[in-house]
Amino acid sequence: MSASRPTLEAVAAHAGVSRATVSRVVNGGAGVREEVRERVNRSITELAYVPNRAARSLVTRRTGAVAVVIAEPETRVFSDPFFPRHLRGISRELARHDLQLLLLLLGEGDDPDRIGRYLSAGHVDGVLMFSLHRDDPLPAMATASGLPTVFGGRPGWESPGESGGPLHVDVDNVGGARLATDHLLARGRRRIAVITGPLDQTSAQDRLTGYRHALEAAGLTVDEQLVAHGGFTMEGGEAAMAALLDRRPDVDAVFACNDLMATGALRTLRAAGREVPRDVAVVGFDDLEPAAWAEPALTTVHQDVEEMGRMMAELLLRLMNPSPDEAPPASVVTPVRLVVRDSG
Amino acid sequence: MSASRPTLEAVAAHAGVSRATVSRVVNGGAGVREEVRERVNRSITELAYVPNRAARSLVTRRTGAVAVVIAEPETRVFSDPFFPRHLRGISRELARHDLQLLLLLLGEGDDPDRIGRYLSAGHVDGVLMFSLHRDDPLPAMATASGLPTVFGGRPGWESPGESGGPLHVDVDNVGGARLATDHLLARGRRRIAVITGPLDQTSAQDRLTGYRHALEAAGLTVDEQLVAHGGFTMEGGEAAMAALLDRRPDVDAVFACNDLMATGALRTLRAAGREVPRDVAVVGFDDLEPAAWAEPALTTVHQDVEEMGRMMAELLLRLMNPSPDEAPPASVVTPVRLVVRDSG
Repeated sequence: MSASRPTLEAVAAHAGVSRATVSRVVNGGAGVREEVRERVNRSITELAYVPNRAARSLVTRRTGAVAVVIAEPETRVFSDPFFPRHLRGISRELARHDLQLLLLLLGEGDDPDRIGRYLSAGHVDGVLMFSLHRDDPLPAMATASGLPTVFGGRPGWESPGESGGPLHVDVDNVGGARLATDHLLARGRRRIAVITGPLDQTSAQDRLTGYRHALEAAGLTVDEQLVAHGGFTMEGGEAAMAALLDRRPDVDAVFACNDLMATGALRTLRAAGREVPRDVAVVGFDDLEPAAWAEPALTTVHQDVEEMGRMMAELLLRLMNPSPDEAPPASVVTPVRLVVRDSG
Repeated sequence: MSASRPTLEAVAAHAGVSRATVSRVVNGGAGVREEVRERVNRSITELAYVPNRAARSLVTRRTGAVAVVIAEPETRVFSDPFFPRHLRGISRELARHDLQLLLLLLGEGDDPDRIGRYLSAGHVDGVLMFSLHRDDPLPAMATASGLPTVFGGRPGWESPGESGGPLHVDVDNVGGARLATDHLLARGRRRIAVITGPLDQTSAQDRLTGYRHALEAAGLTVDEQLVAHGGFTMEGGEAAMAALLDRRPDVDAVFACNDLMATGALRTLRAAGREVPRDVAVVGFDDLEPAAWAEPALTTVHQDVEEMGRMMAELLLRLMNPSPDEAPPASVVTPVRLVVRDSG
């Protein structure tokens, strides 16, 4: 044999790892331990191995694209700063691995089959799915497509803490809501209302659960008159706060399950002449732009949304490039912390 | 020959139109005159012709998807209500024709070749491109991909009013800026500043041109000290207004080239203790949500952004389904009107 270009197999043998691990290092190294990655890179250098993108693409039949599917109408996706932050985290991680992000929105009245057909037709290498509602047809379509899939937030058919099901990245919604409510209790509030998101989403359910747990742990009973629904929008928060003031004028605190609804609640309270936090304390959830802009500045539960996006992309890359040297990827629940500002 | 299913050709002969026209009616009828569409539909009914989606897709090798490429980072796409409105118009029109919208963003530092590769690899049937900056590599990539393409806004290499070049849908930016500035002149303002968008975009250039034309027509010379740059963002508008107050404390009006910058200018004026419109009148451009929320409510140039999105999709559908019975599609410049509210 004449001198030929070194193969992937030669690099694997030289580094003492599997072919798949070399492949993953070459493809960006997601999920490969630092130490292993360095060993493989040393072997690549010593053998002067040149990965060939075009050849790789032929072998793997990859498209170089990942679909991000969000089951929400444009109006919500573009009015809630949660989504662009998440997308930034995802797109940076994908860009590091030279993958193109395609955003597909499924609004009310849209045909989910159209998205299913696109996913099944071989135009993408993987899927990230968001904002799933109960009975959503999209997860089944992702399964039918055979594509590696990671969910943003726990899918509706799993309980919090369950870990055997589909891969997802979630935030500690129960714990965060508990922190928010405990904080209001510690400030001496006793008639604490909650404004919830759409309860067909696990994030909204879990935050309501955390609120209930905190009240029960404090020996208080949950008064259903203090539970109002705001659908995660600013207008929803405004209307929910108005309903609460109407039903329970003696309300002395509100935990709004996201910052947008908290901002809406602040508007209603201002219009009603209630001083925040003196008359009514307000705590939100997210710690995105609206929290800092709010008047007064919002006390809220901080979640690192951009990092969650990055983690979703990383999990997906590990699904797309499985390695026998590594444990299979597992779902992640990210921690939260309370940021105390002026509103509560 | 035994009784067989009627063919597309049979429908074309029966209706007295071309095969392509029947195909376009079957595919939703974009760009087909009402009268012709009705005739074809009558023939379809009389012959009991059943279009077969799967067969059609095999013949045309279509993917059922259209890419919308926006050359802006997530932060801008998601903070300017212009984009979701446009996307709503586009996605509704595409949905009527059972086409899936894929959104691809190209932020600063992103590799445009990645988008070019995806477009060229046969994963979409057409492209809508937005927010092109001068020397943008994307239009050449669209051409190289051979895909039907429609631009949102006039591409940078064409002059206003030119019509032979690539298909686009634009708003009458020069005329709108002229309306805004004429309105301020009619209100007796003489030291009228302008806050511009990024001048490597034709929309920003054209609005500045309209401002200059209005001043010149009124016999005033353009004072370069009254020209400030705000990059189409709220923060940019705030900073530009501060610079204007610093350079020309006697400024008595501002034309901000979009509503977001006008909102920023209002903030700066309020912080500086200038009353609007008494001390300084402010006029914006867009007439989207920020205009209505502004304090005081914003006088602004109205453009129908959702309809522009719909028109872009319609032009693209006509490019994708050309008909010998129709004139080739032409670029569109949509009209504007001034909406007078409280700020100027």
